[in-house]
Amino acid sequence: MSSQGLFATITDDLFAAFLEFVGTTIFLLFALGGVQAVTAEAQSTPNTVSNIERILYISLCFGFSLAVSAWLFFRVTGGLFNPNVSLALFICGVIGPVRFVLYCIAQLVGSIAAAALVLALTPGPLASNTILGPGINAAQGVFIEMFVTAALVLSVLMLAAEKHQSTPFAPLGIGLTLFVAELWSVYYTGGSLNTARAFGPAVVTGFPDGHHWVYWVGPFLGSLLASLFYAILKQ
Amino acid sequence: MSSQGLFATITDDLFAAFLEFVGTTIFLLFALGGVQAVTAEAQSTPNTVSNIERILYISLCFGFSLAVSAWLFFRVTGGLFNPNVSLALFICGVIGPVRFVLYCIAQLVGSIAAAALVLALTPGPLASNTILGPGINAAQGVFIEMFVTAALVLSVLMLAAEKHQSTPFAPLGIGLTLFVAELWSVYYTGGSLNTARAFGPAVVTGFPDGHHWVYWVGPFLGSLLASLFYAILKQ
Amino acid sequence: MSSQGLFATITDDLFAAFLEFVGTTIFLLFALGGVQAVTAEAQSTPNTVSNIERILYISLCFGFSLAVSAWLFFRVTGGLFNPNVSLALFICGVIGPVRFVLYCIAQLVGSIAAAALVLALTPGPLASNTILGPGINAAQGVFIEMFVTAALVLSVLMLAAEKHQSTPFAPLGIGLTLFVAELWSVYYTGGSLNTARAFGPAVVTGFPDGHHWVYWVGPFLGSLLASLFYAILKQ
Amino acid sequence: MSSQGLFATITDDLFAAFLEFVGTTIFLLFALGGVQAVTAEAQSTPNTVSNIERILYISLCFGFSLAVSAWLFFRVTGGLFNPNVSLALFICGVIGPVRFVLYCIAQLVGSIAAAALVLALTPGPLASNTILGPGINAAQGVFIEMFVTAALVLSVLMLAAEKHQSTPFAPLGIGLTLFVAELWSVYYTGGSLNTARAFGPAVVTGFPDGHHWVYWVGPFLGSLLASLFYAILKQ
Repeated sequence: MSSQGLFATITDDLFAAFLEFVGTTIFLLFALGGVQAVTAEAQSTPNTVSNIERILYISLCFGFSLAVSAWLFFRVTGGLFNPNVSLALFICGVIGPVRFVLYCIAQLVGSIAAAALVLALTPGPLASNTILGPGINAAQGVFIEMFVTAALVLSVLMLAAEKHQSTPFAPLGIGLTLFVAELWSVYYTGGSLNTARAFGPAVVTGFPDGHHWVYWVGPFLGSLLASLFYAILKQ
Repeated sequence: MSSQGLFATITDDLFAAFLEFVGTTIFLLFALGGVQAVTAEAQSTPNTVSNIERILYISLCFGFSLAVSAWLFFRVTGGLFNPNVSLALFICGVIGPVRFVLYCIAQLVGSIAAAALVLALTPGPLASNTILGPGINAAQGVFIEMFVTAALVLSVLMLAAEKHQSTPFAPLGIGLTLFVAELWSVYYTGGSLNTARAFGPAVVTGFPDGHHWVYWVGPFLGSLLASLFYAILKQ
Repeated sequence: MSSQGLFATITDDLFAAFLEFVGTTIFLLFALGGVQAVTAEAQSTPNTVSNIERILYISLCFGFSLAVSAWLFFRVTGGLFNPNVSLALFICGVIGPVRFVLYCIAQLVGSIAAAALVLALTPGPLASNTILGPGINAAQGVFIEMFVTAALVLSVLMLAAEKHQSTPFAPLGIGLTLFVAELWSVYYTGGSLNTARAFGPAVVTGFPDGHHWVYWVGPFLGSLLASLFYAILKQ
Repeated sequence: MSSQGLFATITDDLFAAFLEFVGTTIFLLFALGGVQAVTAEAQSTPNTVSNIERILYISLCFGFSLAVSAWLFFRVTGGLFNPNVSLALFICGVIGPVRFVLYCIAQLVGSIAAAALVLALTPGPLASNTILGPGINAAQGVFIEMFVTAALVLSVLMLAAEKHQSTPFAPLGIGLTLFVAELWSVYYTGGSLNTARAFGPAVVTGFPDGHHWVYWVGPFLGSLLASLFYAILKQ
């Protein structure tokens, strides 16, 4: 820390946060746009017989949208696009407190921007709110979100924060982790793994679901769990 | 620029344009061929219940066809196969004006060749025109094409034009970007992201759709947007 | 072997086994969770018309869950998550007898933990037991499991145990091998390729199927077959 | 060529051919096994509504089975598994005449072995013969097979025969090329791209289809076309 204290690198931090905002908007514009498309397709079919292909489609949208948008921004700002990942990097000392706060704001605002763009560019109401699936109670939702977020955060810590031969390909590994996590969690919790991803559509649609807090608590706990495990591993 | 002026490297430029023609033909022969196959399959089924798998199929065709054909030609001509990408590389100074014009011609002609080959080799009319989806007006179509093309162009600039450790794998990243963009845009605009891709089938089928201009304006704006953002980033 | 004999590295071995336990739990939590989700989706649809998308979904869950969880743990413990792979590495001299036994225990217990977590976090009974498909007798089941496990084990030996330029990407190759193996074997045997994967859900559900022994004998023979072929290759 | 003439390296050649036999058997055991599974699944469903997911499934089986089996054998024998690829490598001088003949024999026999194994291990008749699709005449079949095989062969020449930074990952690029080619050609010609792949199941089932010659002529022409283009490129 320089003599100017916490804000010594504020120009760099602000530029990095601007790029996080752009990157999060790209990531979620594509992912939420895909959800919008697949939902419109499903509704235009009178007697849909299976939900499986819809969930596979959504998992592909999120996983590969994260993979490519993180690939683009990886060497510039890290390409986190997720406040829960930001928290883990702050806990592990990769980023400082000012950058952490700026990243979280940029990521939440980027998500709102992406949701608003999808709403403006496509017909029909926004279809991408995360809700709990059939038969899932709030506690189960919190723990599912906790486990899948922990795996995603661990993936960032092990593949990107660590430096090794396959580090340049970390975005692909992180995107595939999200893909696999979505295959499990979309059906049960909507597969947020990212408070920003749940927050943006909720803001644009006026918080229609009473369980929105699940997507703050679950990913937050997952971030702590992954940071703790990483600390044990690094001892 | 040597003393011979713009045309000093005309032999190299012509050979590169010839390879762009071949590469664009391969890229679109496979992608449009896949669209032809999936459309024939969908029509042979009396009571199709879902359109989702058809759109996923088309997205896979375009994304992975670009990934592999760009991989083949990457070290030779760059493997752009897209006049909007050519424009961005011209704006950013990666290619000169002569090569830019030759590339655009090669790419547009390559697309016509691919569409004609698919028509000749398969039964039924050509099924690969890009049209606006249900409930999408022309302005929305332009902006969706603009955003997805901007992401594709940015992907080329960040992964291939920039030199770094994962540059040899840029074709995979660029192909996956197209895949994700298609998952969002096929349903709404047909997912062109490439004026050549829309132009070839339109020529072969006699421009049946009045909104063909959308696929010139949208990707053109996307190319400008990505070039602008890249210029800001590089300052 | 140091003067302290077999247990000279017991601290390292125990820590590695602990990580194998965590890694196996993550691998199977995601894979079995995906099976649980897709089965619940299939049951909620009254007139399912095709089983194909369900099997593709399961293959993607297992293949990519192994790819990403092995990627995370690859540089730490190897990321085997499979007693049959452990056996082959023991036969080929990559790991010693103490680590082999500890790994097997960690992997079997990790599978039980994953199955129990899926049961606790989702509604309905556990849906991930491996059973023989329609028209498959026990001998066919054993030989299918033998061949697919042999390919998976060979993949670990050739891509990860061997050191070469693409070794850092071995987890992706190994995960894709499991993906392809699942595309063939899920329909016929449930696609275990891993005694731990079959054992965990069977313990949690009380061994409802009389053919559970198939998933011990088949993968065991596959491990021997791959080790033998590898020994011939290395001569 | 040493003083012993063509057969100077016969021991190496025979061992390489033995590995080609094993590799081709693995590649096609998985791919034909997947076709067998998906066909059995499709037949067990009374009112199948769509063929699209079946063709996607088959494309994934072939593409990724080639990717992983070529990855395993890449550094040992090259992992061709295809007489048409062998021919191109012979024309381009990468392999000699003795090895070319031995490879072709090994690949054809490997395909028969794979088809026989699938027949023995699964119920029902073998389902993996390549036949011309609805409305496709023999000439169209020959030219489709020619174009897709040319792309596959070109992929081997550009990614694996050429030495560059992404050469260690050639198997993935080649496998993805086959995947994309299958997305186009499975519906129209069964997607052989490989005389061995068509020959094995045809031998096991007694050549039930009168158009089997298409899968000798088409891929052969494709191999010539790709070799010619590669020669122009290398001048």
